[in-house]
Amino acid sequence: MQQDGATLGGLGEEGVLGEVLDAYADLPAQDLLVGPGDDTGLLAVRTGAVLATTDTVVRDRDWRDDWSTAQDVGIKVVTQNLADLAAMGGRGTGVLVALVAPDSLPRAWVRGLTEGIAHAAGRAGVPVVGGDLSSTPGDTVMVAVTALGELDDGVGAPVLRSGARPGDLLAVSGPLGRSGAGLELLSSGRSTARDEQERALLDHHRRPLTDLGQGPAAARAGATSMIDVSDGLVRDGDRVARASGVRLVLDGAALDRLAAALVPAVDPEEALRQVLSGGEEHELLATFPAGADVPSGWTVLGEVVALGADAPADRPGVWCREERLDPAHGGWDHFGG
Amino acid sequence: MQQDGATLGGLGEEGVLGEVLDAYADLPAQDLLVGPGDDTGLLAVRTGAVLATTDTVVRDRDWRDDWSTAQDVGIKVVTQNLADLAAMGGRGTGVLVALVAPDSLPRAWVRGLTEGIAHAAGRAGVPVVGGDLSSTPGDTVMVAVTALGELDDGVGAPVLRSGARPGDLLAVSGPLGRSGAGLELLSSGRSTARDEQERALLDHHRRPLTDLGQGPAAARAGATSMIDVSDGLVRDGDRVARASGVRLVLDGAALDRLAAALVPAVDPEEALRQVLSGGEEHELLATFPAGADVPSGWTVLGEVVALGADAPADRPGVWCREERLDPAHGGWDHFGG
Repeated sequence: MQQDGATLGGLGEEGVLGEVLDAYADLPAQDLLVGPGDDTGLLAVRTGAVLATTDTVVRDRDWRDDWSTAQDVGIKVVTQNLADLAAMGGRGTGVLVALVAPDSLPRAWVRGLTEGIAHAAGRAGVPVVGGDLSSTPGDTVMVAVTALGELDDGVGAPVLRSGARPGDLLAVSGPLGRSGAGLELLSSGRSTARDEQERALLDHHRRPLTDLGQGPAAARAGATSMIDVSDGLVRDGDRVARASGVRLVLDGAALDRLAAALVPAVDPEEALRQVLSGGEEHELLATFPAGADVPSGWTVLGEVVALGADAPADRPGVWCREERLDPAHGGWDHFGG
Repeated sequence: MQQDGATLGGLGEEGVLGEVLDAYADLPAQDLLVGPGDDTGLLAVRTGAVLATTDTVVRDRDWRDDWSTAQDVGIKVVTQNLADLAAMGGRGTGVLVALVAPDSLPRAWVRGLTEGIAHAAGRAGVPVVGGDLSSTPGDTVMVAVTALGELDDGVGAPVLRSGARPGDLLAVSGPLGRSGAGLELLSSGRSTARDEQERALLDHHRRPLTDLGQGPAAARAGATSMIDVSDGLVRDGDRVARASGVRLVLDGAALDRLAAALVPAVDPEEALRQVLSGGEEHELLATFPAGADVPSGWTVLGEVVALGADAPADRPGVWCREERLDPAHGGWDHFGG
């Protein structure tokens, strides 16, 4: 039996907020001129402009309680927001967190979520600037994070999706398909890892902790376009291709090598599918001028080709072996698709 | 019968986003260096620091579809966020919007929401910097807005809750209790106004459109503390009193005058209750030094008194006629209370 106070409803709004704010009190706050507890936060901005993005996770859509802990959810939602900043060449300077949940949500779950948020924010060196707590009459549990940031030192302009140019190299900041392969393991009933490979895949699905410094590193190396791989290589690559008016031509051998890293945890066909379409990876996909020094840790995946240059059809998109990969069948659409 | 595409699920994520972004295209964007459509937005910040706040509304908790249109919801959620900026002495510079909804949500509702958001943002002269769209397996519809802003011209420092000093005047930027009285009318079955007074109350409940310039005006006039009245005079006043370590002593005659403005739409007793505890008003409560010129349009409600100065009990809070008003019975708590 749960005691009184063991749920959000029992604890009351101010009680919950008190606990949550305590957990954030040790985050770096030198730029936080006014922190949570007033009508708004006030955050110093040194570069004349603030990056801002928002990304939401929903129970039974973005996570399942039997597969992910509350800490996992907190880490994941913060990381995916910070990865969007990294993809512009930015670094985080603060996050805001909104939680919507039924009165019946266990207080322990909120504590876990808060710990996960504090962990991911602490790793990135950013404070919690503000937040909101709302109840819902339904069962939905939803965490909405807004991340604020600035272009990192040495990054003069944001790296957009629209800057890829024919002749550029296409590269990715790390492995692909791990989160999707981890989800595949969970879906097939394997929530406990049998070896280190499976553990890495499950961990990356539950709590991706990518190197957020790779975005600014790519920007300093001259990246012409960049995107966070959140909906899969094909779908996110297609966005870059359309914004830039080019084709991204993938190197089949490079894809095979990325896929091989997921075998035998998943079978080879599934591995390739996850490399192409697995979402929630939060590595970065970027293009670099042909002569650029692609930063250490990045893998060249292909090249940028002008429309009509050497392909039968004349259409922006992600191509491999003379074929356009259909984003509708290679990624995750939140509605329909 | 709804046609294919008449719901979020039918339209697909990119289709919905395309429609939504079109609706925001005409908002003022001179400071929006990168707008929606990339991994993050980039917004110019002229004063070296950004104000940031987030506030969420949930269907059947913050609105009912039979009482409020989608446009109403969009106006209300943006206004309540911008009011938080105003309460610091700030003005909005941008908003981010996250929508979580089931696949079955009608496309027309999303259009209406978007129109409401665009209306309230346009009125304040701010662009939409970014957003997110997520599906939920449940019935919950949730709109989370993050508002960004800056201290307004001539405002050197943010106005906090903690700055009220004994001897200050307490004032409010407009009427109180309208939203609560409007909700009371709706709850008693009156969703169509019988006269102008009822119409004003219903309108203010559904789509509060307060004068957001009053926050900066109060800051320039020397306001020592300020808060947006979102949870009721007593509850929000109690927050200022505790943060400042003072008592706010209300003038009973001033309360009676505010209450009289709600009669006969609601009866006199209910009117006083709504003045004290009605939420979602989004007028501003501020304290001013005794000699300050309280800005035009503000009503003096009482004064700030030191603890132990002239009252039997020695406790921060909101007092009236020698009695401390209990915030637990005078406002809205999102969980329990």
